[in-house]
Order: sequence, then structure tokens, then C-alpha cells
Amino acid sequence: MYTLKGIFPPLPTSFNNDEALATNKMVENIKLLNRFNLAGFLVLGSNGEMVHLTDDEKEKVYVETRKAIPSDKIMLAGTGCPSTRQTIELTQKAAKAGADAALVLNPSYYKGLMTKEVLMKHYFTIADASSIPIIVYNMPANSGLDMDAKTIIALSQHDNIIGLKDSGGNIAKMGEIRAYAHLDFQLLAGSAGFLLPALSVGAVGGVLALANIAPQHCIDILQDFMDKKMDDAREKQLKIIKLNNFVTRQYGVPALKAAMNTLGLYGGPSRSPLLPLDDSIKKQLRNLMKDSNIQSFVHY
Amino acid sequence: MYTLKGIFPPLPTSFNNDEALATNKMVENIKLLNRFNLAGFLVLGSNGEMVHLTDDEKEKVYVETRKAIPSDKIMLAGTGCPSTRQTIELTQKAAKAGADAALVLNPSYYKGLMTKEVLMKHYFTIADASSIPIIVYNMPANSGLDMDAKTIIALSQHDNIIGLKDSGGNIAKMGEIRAYAHLDFQLLAGSAGFLLPALSVGAVGGVLALANIAPQHCIDILQDFMDKKMDDAREKQLKIIKLNNFVTRQYGVPALKAAMNTLGLYGGPSRSPLLPLDDSIKKQLRNLMKDSNIQSFVHY
Amino acid sequence: MYTLKGIFPPLPTSFNNDEALATNKMVENIKLLNRFNLAGFLVLGSNGEMVHLTDDEKEKVYVETRKAIPSDKIMLAGTGCPSTRQTIELTQKAAKAGADAALVLNPSYYKGLMTKEVLMKHYFTIADASSIPIIVYNMPANSGLDMDAKTIIALSQHDNIIGLKDSGGNIAKMGEIRAYAHLDFQLLAGSAGFLLPALSVGAVGGVLALANIAPQHCIDILQDFMDKKMDDAREKQLKIIKLNNFVTRQYGVPALKAAMNTLGLYGGPSRSPLLPLDDSIKKQLRNLMKDSNIQSFVHY
Amino acid sequence: MYTLKGIFPPLPTSFNNDEALATNKMVENIKLLNRFNLAGFLVLGSNGEMVHLTDDEKEKVYVETRKAIPSDKIMLAGTGCPSTRQTIELTQKAAKAGADAALVLNPSYYKGLMTKEVLMKHYFTIADASSIPIIVYNMPANSGLDMDAKTIIALSQHDNIIGLKDSGGNIAKMGEIRAYAHLDFQLLAGSAGFLLPALSVGAVGGVLALANIAPQHCIDILQDFMDKKMDDAREKQLKIIKLNNFVTRQYGVPALKAAMNTLGLYGGPSRSPLLPLDDSIKKQLRNLMKDSNIQSFVHY
Repeated sequence: MYTLKGIFPPLPTSFNNDEALATNKMVENIKLLNRFNLAGFLVLGSNGEMVHLTDDEKEKVYVETRKAIPSDKIMLAGTGCPSTRQTIELTQKAAKAGADAALVLNPSYYKGLMTKEVLMKHYFTIADASSIPIIVYNMPANSGLDMDAKTIIALSQHDNIIGLKDSGGNIAKMGEIRAYAHLDFQLLAGSAGFLLPALSVGAVGGVLALANIAPQHCIDILQDFMDKKMDDAREKQLKIIKLNNFVTRQYGVPALKAAMNTLGLYGGPSRSPLLPLDDSIKKQLRNLMKDSNIQSFVHY
Repeated sequence: MYTLKGIFPPLPTSFNNDEALATNKMVENIKLLNRFNLAGFLVLGSNGEMVHLTDDEKEKVYVETRKAIPSDKIMLAGTGCPSTRQTIELTQKAAKAGADAALVLNPSYYKGLMTKEVLMKHYFTIADASSIPIIVYNMPANSGLDMDAKTIIALSQHDNIIGLKDSGGNIAKMGEIRAYAHLDFQLLAGSAGFLLPALSVGAVGGVLALANIAPQHCIDILQDFMDKKMDDAREKQLKIIKLNNFVTRQYGVPALKAAMNTLGLYGGPSRSPLLPLDDSIKKQLRNLMKDSNIQSFVHY
Repeated sequence: MYTLKGIFPPLPTSFNNDEALATNKMVENIKLLNRFNLAGFLVLGSNGEMVHLTDDEKEKVYVETRKAIPSDKIMLAGTGCPSTRQTIELTQKAAKAGADAALVLNPSYYKGLMTKEVLMKHYFTIADASSIPIIVYNMPANSGLDMDAKTIIALSQHDNIIGLKDSGGNIAKMGEIRAYAHLDFQLLAGSAGFLLPALSVGAVGGVLALANIAPQHCIDILQDFMDKKMDDAREKQLKIIKLNNFVTRQYGVPALKAAMNTLGLYGGPSRSPLLPLDDSIKKQLRNLMKDSNIQSFVHY
Repeated sequence: MYTLKGIFPPLPTSFNNDEALATNKMVENIKLLNRFNLAGFLVLGSNGEMVHLTDDEKEKVYVETRKAIPSDKIMLAGTGCPSTRQTIELTQKAAKAGADAALVLNPSYYKGLMTKEVLMKHYFTIADASSIPIIVYNMPANSGLDMDAKTIIALSQHDNIIGLKDSGGNIAKMGEIRAYAHLDFQLLAGSAGFLLPALSVGAVGGVLALANIAPQHCIDILQDFMDKKMDDAREKQLKIIKLNNFVTRQYGVPALKAAMNTLGLYGGPSRSPLLPLDDSIKKQLRNLMKDSNIQSFVHY
């Protein structure tokens, strides 16, 4: 079984100025991030603009990023699609490209019909068909659907479903899942805003947008927690909540990419309809980054 | 300019038992529905499981259904994708296949970023690039995003954006849009549950799941309204609200398909993760259909 | 049985500049509004700031306004409190003061516990104990709880529960209630924004904040509808939606009072925490009133 | 300045079988709970059914419970009303009765109007007028309004506003408040479901329904956290989340009272419309209490 312990950046997908896919830029970013003791990478999560890519482009991202992700780092690949059959196909492509595990967002278009029974059938069918382990992805702010503890606990019973990335931030729910899920089921915080609280109820790490721009800071929170340096961990946790809100909830992927641009990573544009940040927002971002002591990658 | 006056069924996409696309079944359904004085058809709306199809399958649906839709009937084609570029490509494919107008659902994955400015840029770019007119599609129950009156009124100013299908059911909002949108902008009720109220504030018709199984009933509500027979219209409107809830909000596409099966149309399965109805739910459905006097298509 | 057919203004509660209750100002407003063919008045609804009054003040409002409301006009009195026992007591006080019926908002503080069973027991206990008829009040924007059709249909079976004021604006739900509620149960639109659509599915009138400042306009919509002048009714309906939003959802009671001030009625302050409108908002309000042709009461 | 460090049970208000107020039962409960090292008590919070009491009853609860709460224990009194003036009056009564601080729930009936400006004016006016310190109470599940971090941080700047009870469970928000609020501002977890996560971001304790039935368990989580026994703290935290959900979100005050009944405390009925638990739910409750090792108070 894979341990998911550690910090994973959800790598943004890079585009050229004409919005064409630029996997070479992603490779450059991975190389810079490889200087840090990250557990691995997620490609094609929400920050990876998965929904903006064609199937061919998704496959290309899997293949090209795997080449740049060292074999001792875990590669997680987002593969969740609205239909069960598309998700199975894409998961097989990710596996073939060398992904270690697939992160599967729940279907959500037919929200009212996504009962526990429907979701179990969906995830179990995928997990049965997949040669790589499945991680459940709950992302209510984007999907509009918040899977409940009972459903996730039921999913944890499948041998090939090994964990959960929860971006909802309901910590009591994460605790309930930790208490009742299969013992081997591993929880990952889905946002740096609640990394330490999630660790406090038993999460093993996080897939954190912020780890793209402040990898060491995120790693340090986890390390301090493991070393029982709770005051240090708290201080670091509090320092990045506002910046984290800014590059996730508030201004999202374009803000994360703008932050990357200022640090020596490749940010570049998002695909339309996402628009680049206004200059006034960019200024706010730079101030927040300064307040949080986010340092350029050229200093490392 | 096209008039959108009238009733349009949003045709479910047909699948064989192995979930393979079965456009021949869609063609059979169109032939049966052509007996009624419908204004046209929508393919690949929410009831058409657009999100469950590959790009090739979407194109095939456009091409094959157009052949069966008479040239004097309007063919509306759902083409809304998460990215602007994919939506443009798909709209071009729909136009090439002979669709008369494209129904474009708003992007919604990055909900928090879908400002009026972002949505205007998205829709205007698509409308500029499209050879066929664009109809805005607001469907908050599925997308998790309810476009506000101001945004839709702004969209109505574009020459190539000719109307709105609103499935949200906020009639005061529909009225505000009618009052302030471009005069040529046409409103369509997105559900039979509020067809008559929508007509009362200026809608010209509806794209109604129920029109797949009760086309004449829907046509009659519109006709009674135009004839100022408000009591008759109301009586017919009230008669189908509960059944309409059942096959839309409550049990959705699988319920609509189950109803079609009982009437001599082809319903068949939905694609997973959507599951067929339980027998007890099917029984409730049959009772509701009986209460609403829904008649088999073999009687016509 | 009382017929609730017609238009009812929900009278704001008047306060002096020190926020002391000023029932004399309410009496003056009633006299001015009595020039119009209104069906009656509601006191202590949401626009009446019921939640800001002490029990003694509530009783005083019932007593003093009844003196000014002619005996051939219906007086509706808001009496809904969080507990069943308080609601019964207050309903008895309203009845003693001469109210014709009590408008009872559902309890909502313990939202998660307000099952159909709980709400039925609450309303039936009150209806049993009350000497005057009960009207159910659904106001989700304020209470945070939207009673469903099934619950309201069940409530309609009680002999002493005679109607519903629904401010939610879900017209399909109003239609479902009309179709399945007791035949004698009467529906009132809770906002002028959807008066005509509500009439189209069987409502008999409305309790409309806007009827405080545009009584004739509201009366005309109802009259046009009854005369089957649907185009006239629609034109009038569309004309006031934006203004109605402004003085209800958007800026609420302080905006309604500001509008009253400009028309020769007494508006005055709301009780804190509600604050008076900023000057820029007041200007917007005056422009909207002009656009909607709202006329001063001194012209009548 | 008072330190709020520690665990506070929000004492349910006791009623006899006829729903008459029974402060003598509350006194008995306080005596039993005084055996534990609690920091104090909250009376008239959400679990105290404040909204179900008359003003005279509220005052009686303040007076009678203060007599039973030792002077070295902090008495917090819920005093938040819909209007500013009522809240000031009630806060003065609580102060006169000997309460150490007032817990003030935000007004929420006019949700759409509760801007940061309105809330600041409300709280600052109350804090200016009060002889005892004010604690802000955010309880979105009941009030339907979730005060944002910016508003609460602004409130923390007032000398007489000393802390926050947050029952929303948004831990990232608690962290943001901790990072940017006045240094002396103290945070209390509003539910045992997220006590440990709240402590991890800087909360000093909690006002926890569960502390009525498992006081030592709650105290131990806090003590383990202070002793850096994170594994022990986590184990205890996870053990009570499900039971906590049951007696708070899911079945609420009637469930908490039913649990108290089984432990040798006085639970008794809630006031209508709240109904007692069904027998089947009571059985589930007993099983959950057994699973969580909740022990009778007669054992201590």
C-alpha cells in the first residue's frame, strides 16, 4: 500500500499565451519544486484546470509530467469525469502513463440523484476496473455537492480505494471519517487553510495549492506537528490562511498562476473563461505574499 | 431572426443496454413526437445527458437527429462546455450539422470566479465566433450557479444572443429580465412546472422535459394562454406540476426515460452513474402519470 | 369563511426618531391608504418589524391599528413566535383587539428539527386554540426555512387554517399547493415581484410591501388579471419588479420607509440594528420610483 | 480581563412536564456539574432555548442560576435579541444578576441587511452600554447567517468585546480570526465536534453541549492538548464526534435532554414546537452513548 503521508502540490496546467497546452512549462515547474521534500505531485486537479482540457490533452499531461516526476515521488492523477465509463477510460490512461494513484472527483451534474447508493456503485465500479489505487476527491465549492461522512466511510471499505482528499474544510466530518473509515484509509487536507486542524484529527498530509508557491512552509507545518511543536505549527498555519484564501477561494487559479509568475515559476494564463487578475488585485496579492514571507524560487 | 415561440422537448439521448449510443432510437422518438405541433427539439440539454458523451458522440447526435427533425422545425443544440474554446468548437460542429441555434450552459466549475465580466466575455466570444444564434441556458439546480438578472440582461444586448432558457424557476427574475433585456430577446421556460407563470410575464414558450411524454398537454397550456382562456390554462398547468417534479427535480432523467418506456417511446437506460428506477418508484410514476391523464403514444 | 381576495399592504411599524413606538403615525398612514380599494391590512409582518417589538408593544399595535382599520376591511395580525405557547398567547391578544385572522410565521431557530410532524403539531395546536382563523406564513429569505408543499398541503386540512402567504417566490410550489391543498385554502402572493404569476396559478391576491407605496398599481394588476386583460396586467407587473426588489430583498424595510417619506406617508426610522439608507441609495430609490411612475399620496 | 480558558457547558433550560420553567432543576444540574473542573457555565444559549422564554423568564434564569454557580466559576449569559435596544436591556439584567459576560448572538431576521457596518454599529452600541464584557456568538446553523472573518476581526477591536463563540465549524475562518483579531480576543469552539482542531489554531476552550453529559471527556481533550499529548487528544476527540452530531445538529436539544435523563441529570421536556425523541431514536442515542463510554453522573 502507498503511504500518502506528506505534502503534494496540485500542479497547475500550463498554457502559452494563445492558451495552447504547454507541458514543457509544467516540466520546468516540477524541476523547481523537486528541490523540496514533497511527497509527490497531483496533476489535473481543480488547480490543473482538468475541465478545460480535451481527452488527448489530459493524456499528454499524464505522460509528460510523469517523465519529470522522479520515481520515488508519488504521482497522483485527476481522472474524475461525469460518467463512470469515461472515468474508467481516463484512469486507465493515467495508469498506463505511470500515475501511482487516481484522484476521482465525484460526478455532480445531476446533484439531486447522487445518492449514497449511486456514488458507491460509481466508485466501486471504477475501483474494480483500475490497476492503480483510487483516492476519493470531495470538492464541494466547485462541484456543488458535498459527499457526506456515511458515503465516504462506505467507500473506504473497498480494497482499491485508499484515501480521501477533502477540500470542503468541515473538520468535524473529517474526524468522523477518520473514526469510522477503514483503518488503512488515508486522509489528505485539500487546502492549506486547514492543514494543521486536519492533521490534529488524523490526516496524513495535504494536497495544497499553496504548496506550489510555499512548499517549504507547508512541509514545515507537517514536520512541526509530527515533532509536537504545536506552537510553531500554529504560528506557521496562521501565517498563510489569508494568502491561501486569496489563491484558492477568492481569486483561484489565475491568482495562483500570478503568484507563480512572481516567484520564478511559470504561471502563464488560464484558459478562458478564466481571466487574468486585474492590476489592483495583483498588487494585493504581492502584498499578501510579502506579509506571508513567500520567497522566490531563485533564492533556494 | 428565429422566433422561439412554442414548445420544445429536450430529447433524452438514447443508449442501448450496454450504454452504447443509440441515435437510431432517438430518431424513432423524434418521428413519434413529430405528430404533434411542436416548435422543434433540443438535443444535448440536461435531459440529453450531454455531460456523459464524448465529443465524437455529441457530433453524431447533432448529425443524426437533424436528419429526423423536419426543416420547418427548429433544432436547438446544447453546446456549452467548461471552456470557451471547447464551446466554440462544439457550436461550430452543431452549426455544420444543421442546428438552428445553440443552447449554451454557463461554465460553473470555478463558481466563485464567474463574475458578470467573466460570463460576458465568455458568451460574447462564443456569439462572435458562431454562425448560428446563441441561447443562454441557466440551470442552477445542475450547475450550482444561478446567473443573475443583470448578467443576462447584459448578454441580451449581443446581436447573436437571441434568448434564454431559464430552468431556475425564479419568475420575478424572469420578469425583470423581460422588462430590461433587449426587445428581441426571447424567454423560454425551462420546466413545465412554471410554464404558465412564465408566459404570464412574457415568455414565448418552453423547453420542457414533460413535452417528451405529454406534448399535447404542454402545447395546450400555451394555446389556452394565447386564447386568454386563463381558467383552462391554469387547470392544465396545475394538473402536471407533481408529475413534472417527479421526472425532473426528484428522479430526473431515469424517471423521464422510464415514463417514455411506458408510452411506446424508447426510454432505455441512462449512462452510469445514473441508475434505473427502483420498482417501487416506477409504480409511483405510473400512478402519477395516470392521475395526470398521460396517454400512450400509440393512441394518437 | 373570510375571503382573502384582494391586496393587503403589510404596514410598517412606525417609530419616532428615538425609536419609540409611534402608533399614531401608523394610524395616519392607514387613513391615507384607506382611500384605495384595498382588501385590508397586515400589521406586524416582516415589514412591521415584529421581531423588534416587546410583547406590550405588539399588543398596542393590534389595538391602535384596529381602531383605524374600517370594519369592512380585513385586519391580519402577525403573531408567529418561536414557541407554540407564545404564539397562542399573542394570537389571543390579536383576536381580542379585533384582528380578523392571524398570520403565523413558522418557528425557525431550530431549523434542522422543523420536520413536517413538528410543524403540523405546532400549527394545529395554535389553530385549535385560536378564535380567529390562521394563515400560514412562509418567508424563507428571513426565516432561513422554506416549508415544503407537502407540509403546507397537510396544514390546509385544518378547518381553522384558511390560507398561506408565500414570500418565497417558488411559483411551481404555489401551483402544487393550489392543486392539492384543501379547496377552501387561499393563497396570497407575499411579494409584488410575482403577483401576476401567482394569480396565474390560482392565488387570490397578495400581501405586498409595494402596496404601501403603490396601492393602485397593485390593485390594477389584480383587476386586469380578473378582466383577462393579460397584456395590461403583464405591462404593469414588469414595471414594478425592480423597484419591488429594491424595497424588499435588496434594501428592505429602511428603503420602504424612505419611499414612504417621499410620498407623504410617514416612514421614519427603523429600529436598530437596521440603519437608514445612505444618500446615494436614496437617490437610486427616487430614480426607480420615477421610472415606475410612483405618485405622491397628496395627488390622490 | 477574564480568561475564558476552559470548558463551559451551555446549560439547557429546564421545564416541568407542563412546559413551565423549572429553574430548581437547573440548579440541581449545576450542582452535579460542579463536581467537574469546568471553567463555568453558559445559560440561555441555543441549548438553553432562549428564544422560547419570555423576558421575565430570562431574568429569572439569570438570577437563579447565578446563585448556584460558584463565584470562582464564570457565568456567561446569552442576551442577544433581534433589536439593539432589547439586547442592551437584557444584558443589563444579566449583569445585575451577576453574569460575568454576555454572549450576544447576531441579529439575523433581516439577513440581507446585516452588513459589516450594521453589525459593527449593533455590537459596538451594546458593548458601550454594557457593564460586563461581550462575547460574539456566531451560530449559522440556527441564525442562517454566517458572520465573516472581516466583521469579527473588526468587532475584536472594541475594548469590551473579549471573545467569540463560533459554532459554524469553519476552522480556516477561526484561524484567520486568530491571526488578525486583537491579541486579547479569545476564541471558543462552539461544538465538541471540532474542539481539538479549534485548539490547534489557537482557541482557548469551548462552550460545548456535550460538556453537559461528558464534562470530563471534554476537559481531558483540552488538558491532553495543553500537555502536548496529541495522540491521546485525537483519540478522545474522534470518540465523541458522532454522539456530538446526534445531540447537536441531528436531533438537537430534545436529544441532549434525553441523554441527560439517562445519566441522572434532569433533562425533561423542551418547549413546543420541539418534540421529545421517538423511542427508536432514543435507542440509537443510548447505543451511541455506550459506544462513547458516557457514564452516569451517579458514578462520579
